[in-house]
Amino acid sequence: MCQVASDALRDATKALLDADLAQAELVIASDVRLDEMRSNAEKVALELLALEAPVATDLRTVVSAIWIVADLQRMGALAIHVAKAARRRHPAHVIPAEIRPIIERMGRVGVHLADQAGVVLRERDADLARRLEAEDDLMDDLQRELFATLLAPGWRHGVAPAVDIALLARFYERFADHAVSVARRVVFLVTGENVGGDTTPALVPPDR
Amino acid sequence: MCQVASDALRDATKALLDADLAQAELVIASDVRLDEMRSNAEKVALELLALEAPVATDLRTVVSAIWIVADLQRMGALAIHVAKAARRRHPAHVIPAEIRPIIERMGRVGVHLADQAGVVLRERDADLARRLEAEDDLMDDLQRELFATLLAPGWRHGVAPAVDIALLARFYERFADHAVSVARRVVFLVTGENVGGDTTPALVPPDR
Repeated sequence: MCQVASDALRDATKALLDADLAQAELVIASDVRLDEMRSNAEKVALELLALEAPVATDLRTVVSAIWIVADLQRMGALAIHVAKAARRRHPAHVIPAEIRPIIERMGRVGVHLADQAGVVLRERDADLARRLEAEDDLMDDLQRELFATLLAPGWRHGVAPAVDIALLARFYERFADHAVSVARRVVFLVTGENVGGDTTPALVPPDR
Repeated sequence: MCQVASDALRDATKALLDADLAQAELVIASDVRLDEMRSNAEKVALELLALEAPVATDLRTVVSAIWIVADLQRMGALAIHVAKAARRRHPAHVIPAEIRPIIERMGRVGVHLADQAGVVLRERDADLARRLEAEDDLMDDLQRELFATLLAPGWRHGVAPAVDIALLARFYERFADHAVSVARRVVFLVTGENVGGDTTPALVPPDR
C-alpha cells in the first residue's frame, strides 16, 4: 500500500507538472486498488481479532494495522486529488513556471515519505520513523514558501491559479502528515512511546 | 464527542464571521478535549478487545467505535483550523460581505451534521444516517457556490482572501465528510450494509 500511494503521488505530480491528461487518468483510475487493499487488510484484521483474540503486543499490532491502512488509503485519495486538478485544467497548465520547482520538491518529499514509511513498516525501524518527522517539517517549509509566493505583490497569475495551488499544497501537506502518522504508529508499536501530534492517537493499549 | 465537535464548529464560525479573537482563542484552546476523549475511548476499546475478546456484532461495535472517535477528533481539528484563520487575520475580517451568507450556511450545515451524527449514534437510526448523505450534498453545493464567487470576474478582494476562503471551504467540506462517515459506520453496524464512499471502509467483518 505504501508503494501504491508513493507511485500515485509520483505519477500525479508528473501529470500536474506536464499537464499530461493520460497520466492523470491513470492515477484517477488506480483509486480502487488502495480501497481493495484496505478492505482486504481490514477483513484479515477483523478475522484475527475474532478468531485469535490477540492480547498485548499482538493486539496492538492488529489495531495499528487497522489505523495504518486507513492512513495509506487516504494518501492515495490525496494523490488522486492532485491528478484531478491536472485533469480539470487540461490542456492548460495548473502550475506557473516560478512555482514549478516548489511543487517538484513537494512531490519528491511526499513520495520519499511514503517510501520511507514502507521501510519503517517492513523493518520496524523506530529511528528511521523519527527522522521522517524532520522530513515532514521540510514539507511544511515548502508549503510556507509556496504561500509566500502566491501572496507576494509580484504574483501575476490572478485568483484562480492561486486557489488551485493553495489547495494542491494542502493535499501534499496532508499526504505527508499521513505518512508520518504511519511511521508514528510503528514507533508506538515497537517502543510503546507516544510521539504525539495531531494525527496520532494518544493510545495506551492495555498489556495485560 | 459529537457535541464538542459541533460546538467547536459553531463557535469557530462565529469567531470567523465576527472577527472575534477571544472566541477564536477559546475554540483553539478546546483542542485537548477531543484528544482526551478519543484517547479514553480508545483505551476502553482496547481493554474490551483484550479482556472480553468480543466476536460478531460486539467486535464490529468496538472496531466501529475506534474509527468513529478518529472521525470526531478530526472534526474538532478542522473546526480549530477555522478558528485559526480568524485569529491569523484579526482584527481584519477574513470573510467579505458577499461571502458571509454562504459561510454562515456552511457553518450551520456542518453543525447540524455533527448534531445529527450524535443522534444517529445514540439511536442507531440508519434511516436518519442515510438522510445525512443528502445534507452533505448541500455542503458540496455550497462549496461550489463559494468557488464560483471567488473565481467570478466580479471578485474584487484579490488573491489572499480568495486563498483563505478556498481553504476554509475545504475545512467545512471535510468536517461534513467525517460527520457522514460516522453516520455510515452506524448504518454498517446496524444493517451490515455498506453505503460506500471515499471515507467509508469497505469492511466486511467476519461473523463467526
